Amino acid sequence: MYVILLNMVPSNNKNIDKIPEPTLRRLPWYLSGIKLMKVRGENYVSSTALSRETGIDASKIVKDLSYVNISGRTRVGYDIDEMISVLEEFLWPKKVHKAYLFGVGNLGAALLQDSGLKQFGLEIVGAFDVNKNIIGKSINGIPVYDIASLSNKVKNSGVEIGVLTVPIEVAQSVTDNMVENGIKGVWNFTPFRIRVPENIVVQNTSLYAHLAVMFNRLNNI
Amino acid sequence: MYVILLNMVPSNNKNIDKIPEPTLRRLPWYLSGIKLMKVRGENYVSSTALSRETGIDASKIVKDLSYVNISGRTRVGYDIDEMISVLEEFLWPKKVHKAYLFGVGNLGAALLQDSGLKQFGLEIVGAFDVNKNIIGKSINGIPVYDIASLSNKVKNSGVEIGVLTVPIEVAQSVTDNMVENGIKGVWNFTPFRIRVPENIVVQNTSLYAHLAVMFNRLNNI
Repeated sequence: MYVILLNMVPSNNKNIDKIPEPTLRRLPWYLSGIKLMKVRGENYVSSTALSRETGIDASKIVKDLSYVNISGRTRVGYDIDEMISVLEEFLWPKKVHKAYLFGVGNLGAALLQDSGLKQFGLEIVGAFDVNKNIIGKSINGIPVYDIASLSNKVKNSGVEIGVLTVPIEVAQSVTDNMVENGIKGVWNFTPFRIRVPENIVVQNTSLYAHLAVMFNRLNNI
Repeated sequence: MYVILLNMVPSNNKNIDKIPEPTLRRLPWYLSGIKLMKVRGENYVSSTALSRETGIDASKIVKDLSYVNISGRTRVGYDIDEMISVLEEFLWPKKVHKAYLFGVGNLGAALLQDSGLKQFGLEIVGAFDVNKNIIGKSINGIPVYDIASLSNKVKNSGVEIGVLTVPIEVAQSVTDNMVENGIKGVWNFTPFRIRVPENIVVQNTSLYAHLAVMFNRLNNI
């Protein structure tokens, strides 16, 4: 039986930069499972119980949690409230990251409407487009600027994240432009594989690629 | 040098159910790359050129494309228009899949606004929620129903896909309910790891988990 001990040093951890992406993507599953256990009135959580909750092998859970300085203990498991707060702080640090969104088409406009992003630490402070009909207007309180003013607005703004929802034809040039002006992380919603300098972070989230996976699987059941 | 030949039998392919998910997720990158090459006036595409375009190793491209019945040829490469149409039809078949959305919170409402989904073959025909303030209303022309009418509406509707954007506390029970009423594929946007019978397709797209990955990487550059 694995029981989880949580060490309260989630940040400034030498191991952080080595966390594999699959682990990072499973951590929110654990957090959800733990939250549900709390709803059911449990005060402590063991990796065995979390394995039952999530369907993920307990030894894999222990390994994943070791990256957030959680290690095994053989008695009662760990206080569930502290575990929730450590995982939340680890995944979505309280520091809010500001972002600009590039491309206010269907998906871009939809993302501007999603106030949930701010709850998870991403505040979109402005958007850019080429469409004269929406430039100067606001969506969900977020102003839409002319893409021609990108450099003016982004440079020295302190905004580090760019959300990329432009047509593929301009995905690379808009990326180059934002990176030149100080953007450090690109959340790429386009199905285009953008290229960036080595020190720039890219996270690909192509909704339509996920949709293609689901259609393919559905056609084969 | 690899040159690509495309065999016009994209569907009814015995290999389809064996396509690895990473391959399926790269295919849209190839399609984007090919479309850009067409914009630049090219008429034929080789895997070598596509490798330059996408930054993906040419031998991996050839292997990935073999799942859509694309194999090597040593002359001119393949007609770019046919390649685009075969990949598009393979990824997003012209048959539109109807879907219901469950949970009209921030993200759910944002997805209802994204008319781009329909272009990619997913038509959301209705949504469900518990919030009396929005039940009976429409968002982007899509009616919002009381979740209590789930069984009535979903059963025998022919709708096969459920888009899951509910709070995690009810993610499993809503999933169970939709599956009991005939849903075959669940597009899960929650950070909860839902459990389904073996013959049900699940595609996980947790935006906030992707965000956590980006924050983690940004903190370590």
